[in-house]
Amino acid sequence: MSGRLAERIQGISPFYVMELLHRARQLEAQGKDVIHMEIGEPDFATPQTIIDAGVRQLLTGEIKYTPAAGLAELRQKIARFYQQRYGLSIAKEQIFVTPGASGAFLLALGVSLNPGETLLMADPCYPCNSNFVKLFEGKTETIPVDADSGYQLTADCIKQHWKPATKGVLIASPSNPTGTLIAPEALQQAILTVNALGGCFYSDEIYHGLVYGQNASTALEFSDNVFVINSFSKYFGMTGWRVGWLIVPEEFIAATEKLAQNIFIATSTHSQYAALAAFDEDTIVELERRRLEFAARRDFLYHNLLRLGFEIAVKPQGAFYIYADCARFTDDSFKFALDLLEAEAVAITPGRDFGVHEAHHRIRFAYTTSIGRMAIAIERLERFINRG
Amino acid sequence: MSGRLAERIQGISPFYVMELLHRARQLEAQGKDVIHMEIGEPDFATPQTIIDAGVRQLLTGEIKYTPAAGLAELRQKIARFYQQRYGLSIAKEQIFVTPGASGAFLLALGVSLNPGETLLMADPCYPCNSNFVKLFEGKTETIPVDADSGYQLTADCIKQHWKPATKGVLIASPSNPTGTLIAPEALQQAILTVNALGGCFYSDEIYHGLVYGQNASTALEFSDNVFVINSFSKYFGMTGWRVGWLIVPEEFIAATEKLAQNIFIATSTHSQYAALAAFDEDTIVELERRRLEFAARRDFLYHNLLRLGFEIAVKPQGAFYIYADCARFTDDSFKFALDLLEAEAVAITPGRDFGVHEAHHRIRFAYTTSIGRMAIAIERLERFINRG
Repeated sequence: MSGRLAERIQGISPFYVMELLHRARQLEAQGKDVIHMEIGEPDFATPQTIIDAGVRQLLTGEIKYTPAAGLAELRQKIARFYQQRYGLSIAKEQIFVTPGASGAFLLALGVSLNPGETLLMADPCYPCNSNFVKLFEGKTETIPVDADSGYQLTADCIKQHWKPATKGVLIASPSNPTGTLIAPEALQQAILTVNALGGCFYSDEIYHGLVYGQNASTALEFSDNVFVINSFSKYFGMTGWRVGWLIVPEEFIAATEKLAQNIFIATSTHSQYAALAAFDEDTIVELERRRLEFAARRDFLYHNLLRLGFEIAVKPQGAFYIYADCARFTDDSFKFALDLLEAEAVAITPGRDFGVHEAHHRIRFAYTTSIGRMAIAIERLERFINRG
Repeated sequence: MSGRLAERIQGISPFYVMELLHRARQLEAQGKDVIHMEIGEPDFATPQTIIDAGVRQLLTGEIKYTPAAGLAELRQKIARFYQQRYGLSIAKEQIFVTPGASGAFLLALGVSLNPGETLLMADPCYPCNSNFVKLFEGKTETIPVDADSGYQLTADCIKQHWKPATKGVLIASPSNPTGTLIAPEALQQAILTVNALGGCFYSDEIYHGLVYGQNASTALEFSDNVFVINSFSKYFGMTGWRVGWLIVPEEFIAATEKLAQNIFIATSTHSQYAALAAFDEDTIVELERRRLEFAARRDFLYHNLLRLGFEIAVKPQGAFYIYADCARFTDDSFKFALDLLEAEAVAITPGRDFGVHEAHHRIRFAYTTSIGRMAIAIERLERFINRG
């Protein structure tokens, strides 16, 4: 009977962290106080201005389908956001509102990737991204990256790995799991290289806004011949609302519209109306306050992990992750994570969820919880290490 | 440059009705009163009980990701609904909450369909369904159906068309565009046939609940080895909320969970909380009132279309569509629809959006507007026909 399962499913790995989460829930059911540093979801609630906008829309009673590409007003606001934040003019027609960044990936790859074509991605990278490629019968070629490139692909390594079946390149900046950014010149060189090779460039910018002490460049600064995936989930604090956006090169507009009509009908109406408030001045003030809190959390965690003997070759500049080297303590980071959870009720994500390159020596800490909670986690971690 | 477009996009036809919609909007901008009978979305607002539940959830501020398979409480309520409405015990683990029926189709085909495999569907049928098949590099073999089978596939025709590359069969009951139901025995025979052939059976039940004068059978009454796609959009009046569900055979549970985690993360949180109220007694009372209103609309439209000379071989028993034969008036139903819109500002959907079999002689009327509005539409239609 299992012969009826689609073959693509075999190629999609489960998240190893799920095993940890499952065990964490068992421990919590036993009354243990588990500190969650494995979760890629901020602890902050959605800003009140956004919630209020969502409530106002619900109270109108009119929660009908919107156009497949999204509410015209929201596409307009996203265009204005690029004008204000990056000084860029993006045509409203290139902007598609999607059910989260997940929906944006589905559309971007659905309109561009043929079976057998390959995308280049960094190892480590976020595992879902390559699973979208598998969904469309494409292949991912992951390229090991290290601290010297900020864990990002370079133009040189793109050229070096480009083959006839290569369709394009995905770069995520800030990166999950490393929290590192690609330098503006490196991003520009990567894009120009892919354009010169006639490929597609996909820029995962879902952690834009959550950047500390510098700015993140959008791929659109260097070319309008790029796919940009973004989301209201992370910076804007709208995880559960499931609303994101995709910007496509002009030649893909008609295809993207057609695919969106067919595979989504539309994104949740009230989530889109709520997102209209995401760019309000009051909202941005609150989001910037949170950004500073994330920066403080990063500093706290960074210094304490270094103090305990973890190695962190590049101080992460964005997202809410630190990808630490735990080689001093273990050659099996998955076991390390399982043992830490069992002994001290601190949950973290093992490197193997993000690739194979040095994965056995790496773990990801998410600073999606308060400094107070992280201080307890650090105490527990210290005790665990000293005992081990 | 267009060489970068994925080939699958070429195979996905646009909706012809979009051309009509576009023209309708132009006419409305000129001040014309267009009567919309082309739209597959009820005019009723979401029931107040559901809106209230959505508002309550938003006001908690906790709009975080839910588990990929959906809120446990909602899965439980869906299971209870099958117990109450159909007398069936469905394991909660088999039920996945999805972003609309669209999400349910993505999961169902994503976990089961390999490139090159074929699904059998009726012609006419809802066009998105075969576009999901194309998304996964599968093929659709449409089988012309007529009034004698209620526009539904039969076990005999399934056997007759089954080939080595056939993966399974999709049956939609009530059907879009015909509004017809498959008889319980015919559904049972079709399922047993597919099971005996080792294939997958997909049952599109998104119009369940909107059935007049009889009951619709769920595929689950005859086998638990079926995929059932359903939605809160139509009967429950939750179109814009984008929430539906999928029930999978046990062997597909793990794969579906894995795929949902990767391609959705989760369905909108507040839409799920709102849907918790969909099964409340107060809600059902209101939905049943609407169902009777739909039944009255169907009767009104059915009698008037017959009076004007349209042929309707089977009186539709469900959904909110009448698929009428307009051969007496035209050999080009698309032109008929365009001309009717231009001359009398009544919008309907041409047969070619649903297949090729007799499509040039067919048009779909949606009774998603009030009897008062439909009465005006009928007057206009009568004038148009008499003039023509």
